[in-house]
Amino acid sequence: MRPRILITNDDGIHAEGIKALEKAMREIGEVYVVAPESEQSGASHSLTLSRPLRIRQIDERHWTVDGTPTDCVTFAVNQILLSNERPDICVSGINHGANLGDDATYSGTVAGAMEATILGVPGLAFSLVANRSHDFTESAKVALEVTRKAVEHGIPDGTLLNVNVPKGVPRGIKVTKQGFKTAKPVISEHTDPRGKLYYWIGEERVGFRAEGGTDFEAIDERYVSVTPMRSDLTNHAAIVDLHNWNIEY
Amino acid sequence: MRPRILITNDDGIHAEGIKALEKAMREIGEVYVVAPESEQSGASHSLTLSRPLRIRQIDERHWTVDGTPTDCVTFAVNQILLSNERPDICVSGINHGANLGDDATYSGTVAGAMEATILGVPGLAFSLVANRSHDFTESAKVALEVTRKAVEHGIPDGTLLNVNVPKGVPRGIKVTKQGFKTAKPVISEHTDPRGKLYYWIGEERVGFRAEGGTDFEAIDERYVSVTPMRSDLTNHAAIVDLHNWNIEY
Repeated sequence: MRPRILITNDDGIHAEGIKALEKAMREIGEVYVVAPESEQSGASHSLTLSRPLRIRQIDERHWTVDGTPTDCVTFAVNQILLSNERPDICVSGINHGANLGDDATYSGTVAGAMEATILGVPGLAFSLVANRSHDFTESAKVALEVTRKAVEHGIPDGTLLNVNVPKGVPRGIKVTKQGFKTAKPVISEHTDPRGKLYYWIGEERVGFRAEGGTDFEAIDERYVSVTPMRSDLTNHAAIVDLHNWNIEY
Repeated sequence: MRPRILITNDDGIHAEGIKALEKAMREIGEVYVVAPESEQSGASHSLTLSRPLRIRQIDERHWTVDGTPTDCVTFAVNQILLSNERPDICVSGINHGANLGDDATYSGTVAGAMEATILGVPGLAFSLVANRSHDFTESAKVALEVTRKAVEHGIPDGTLLNVNVPKGVPRGIKVTKQGFKTAKPVISEHTDPRGKLYYWIGEERVGFRAEGGTDFEAIDERYVSVTPMRSDLTNHAAIVDLHNWNIEY
């Protein structure tokens, strides 16, 4: 039986990236799209708790939610798709821009896949490392191939895959670990028409810690980066250190 | 020299929890508060990129930002506090409610501490596990004691501490790992005055996977839970599995 594939993203339902992803996924499964009504870049794993949300059904396979990617996946699994339509896998993207290194923690695209994983649906996030022109031809092929393998082998329990695709034709695929950026946020200061200051958090210049086997390194060498991630944030190695603190109360 | 302590939260600058935390921190350091103007619960590690932000200075030691906890820490470290006032440590909270298990990934409180860690400032997040009455007496004492130890020993590199305090007087402190919830989101459906449906994502019933050494278990046994966390989401154990997939491209 063809797998039921839930598709979401953080650039919104009208983005080119999600259309390319949907087209690719139709080749291997039954597709359901539940995506944000508007752009949600930088939304991270945020869940909208303080206001009501609207679900709009476009057709039998497409819905929008006026919230974050995490809201979309929550609604898709628990409200929109009935129990007999429960998705077998969830793919998020294709993001217009990289989700590498610790930037993955800000990403709505990665969060969509993480939310699926938390809800027991294996999740994959796809991003195209390109700032200006967005040609999703190669990244859609990569998404199809990696998703096929994920359906075939099954993603390890509690794990999601964060996949970044370089510009142009990739040289191959590397399994990587998350790297660390060295770039700093660029905050620009402006004056509004009433003479008051406002600020805008800008794109960071790309910079990363030189370390072998990272997502940054793979992309730098024009390989696809596939990083297995988890929602368990525990730094197990630090538990011993903390025991030695002898915190008393 | 007394450490410079940056304080933030996700309940907003007027919350009782941040006031209790500030009062406690004044005992050991120079305090700077940069907190959201309004409540940001569930904000996760979201960074506001698509709109301008305002910074409002209240007095020499207090600022608000009309954004998320991550925005606040970004501005505090890169804009508000000049280089000679760079914080030595960042404490976030005290959150009105638990941040246990995978719920930590949705938490603006935890994200504030994570952002500090990414920017090279050791971060700690404090949460009081109480839904209704909020008496921060004990949690403020815990925050003071744990922060003192963190200043004394130094938090391991790239690590933040997620501290949850049970209601009442804790029986002691346990160093834990992140647990996993078993509860599901409760989505309630309502009809607006125009007859249209809207939805609200509700609090989940508490439920967690029975497993020794977790944050959930510590709180359940009325201990303070201290979980070392990291912004590296890599599931290192799964890297070998993925190599065996032989993904080709």
